[in-house]
Amino acid sequence: MTFQEIVALHPVSPTPAREALMRCAAECLDCTASCTACADANLSEPDSQHMARSIRLCLDCADACVATSRIAIRQTESDAGLIRAVVEACATACVTCAEECERHAHHHEHCRICAEACRRCKDACDAVLAVL
Amino acid sequence: MTFQEIVALHPVSPTPAREALMRCAAECLDCTASCTACADANLSEPDSQHMARSIRLCLDCADACVATSRIAIRQTESDAGLIRAVVEACATACVTCAEECERHAHHHEHCRICAEACRRCKDACDAVLAVL
Amino acid sequence: MTFQEIVALHPVSPTPAREALMRCAAECLDCTASCTACADANLSEPDSQHMARSIRLCLDCADACVATSRIAIRQTESDAGLIRAVVEACATACVTCAEECERHAHHHEHCRICAEACRRCKDACDAVLAVL
Amino acid sequence: MTFQEIVALHPVSPTPAREALMRCAAECLDCTASCTACADANLSEPDSQHMARSIRLCLDCADACVATSRIAIRQTESDAGLIRAVVEACATACVTCAEECERHAHHHEHCRICAEACRRCKDACDAVLAVL
Repeated sequence: MTFQEIVALHPVSPTPAREALMRCAAECLDCTASCTACADANLSEPDSQHMARSIRLCLDCADACVATSRIAIRQTESDAGLIRAVVEACATACVTCAEECERHAHHHEHCRICAEACRRCKDACDAVLAVL
Repeated sequence: MTFQEIVALHPVSPTPAREALMRCAAECLDCTASCTACADANLSEPDSQHMARSIRLCLDCADACVATSRIAIRQTESDAGLIRAVVEACATACVTCAEECERHAHHHEHCRICAEACRRCKDACDAVLAVL
Repeated sequence: MTFQEIVALHPVSPTPAREALMRCAAECLDCTASCTACADANLSEPDSQHMARSIRLCLDCADACVATSRIAIRQTESDAGLIRAVVEACATACVTCAEECERHAHHHEHCRICAEACRRCKDACDAVLAVL
Repeated sequence: MTFQEIVALHPVSPTPAREALMRCAAECLDCTASCTACADANLSEPDSQHMARSIRLCLDCADACVATSRIAIRQTESDAGLIRAVVEACATACVTCAEECERHAHHHEHCRICAEACRRCKDACDAVLAVL
């Protein structure tokens, strides 16, 4: 994505965590959009009444991922403690949403795909936590 | 705020944490707006070059607080682990931003006021963590 | 709300539209939270299957209002054309959501209250457009 | 991006505007991240004091694009009037931000790249408005 070219030109010299943060931001953007789409698809399913937990967790995960993507992108005066806390919360939101969507993967293909996006985002969050 | 009237009419019976979550959501909304305003005021200050850390942390805190307010408001199929993780991260963002804004409180009154909003939001987050 | 105290201390001298923008930002924050709460309450209603349009429009309105609140709060180098376009879109989102929630006001009290918050926000947007 | 696979599985049959909306959502996600990165890079530049307008417009554009991406992704009970209003506002935000970033393109390469992302997003918004 284009933001990675922009961050590569950032006047501040990169921290060791930058590469992991860039991957995390990209996965957060993919995940927030996937969760927004999956919540919306669930809302239109004939069995939407049984999808309330999936919808709610997708909305939560979408909100956590937007905030995390923005915080991961910023390179000015980074505060490692703040970033760590936010990325940890995002990993929790992603895995919680993935587990619920996986429960519906056999009857809603979009839930299976959404769960995979959440798992990739969780992995990218974990990779940040390993180097920060 | 009006959302509290709406949540009081929610069809799901309240969890013991609801009151703390409602106060947390209200403080998050106050804090996200305060941090947005303080970042912007810093950007127009004659010494804006020395306010980069304050601006960056205000932007981060504003983003964390928006996500947390939305997640705290929702009552459908609440996941305590997800909420706890997000509220913990928000508390960290608030205290980190408050500490930086307090360093500028003597020369920028808006930083002093913003730091107070961040401290109130941190307290409201802690109150959620005490009952969740 | 606290952000109004911060904006009152902003180093840039106020434009004639500032007062209207501050009221608009406050109503947008109230409306985004109300729509988040109403969408969530609808999701838990026994007739949630018939509330899909209300849920979708509440989610849209919540998203439009968050963006508008942030843009209305900022005072640095304001661009009237950009602000006007965003506030116009927010007014449209609010009135569209209000009309749908009003259709459900007789059987869901939270929809009635949400519609009122949307109408107040629409009025605050219109007041900005009248002076900008 | 993954959200496009999910939307392709949406239970509601596609409107004629879906393809344009999907491209618009993808460009909005690219643009919101680019503007977040460019605002942050400007904040760390030695001449950041002269970049205040660019920073402010990048923050506005990032906020408009997040809201628009979410609204464009949703397929349940779409309201053409609401979508049109939000996409029009986004196009205005993108072109306003692009024009400012272009003024700095000769001395800040990240501004040149950000302006291009804004122009692509503006084009994707216009393509929605042509078919909606």
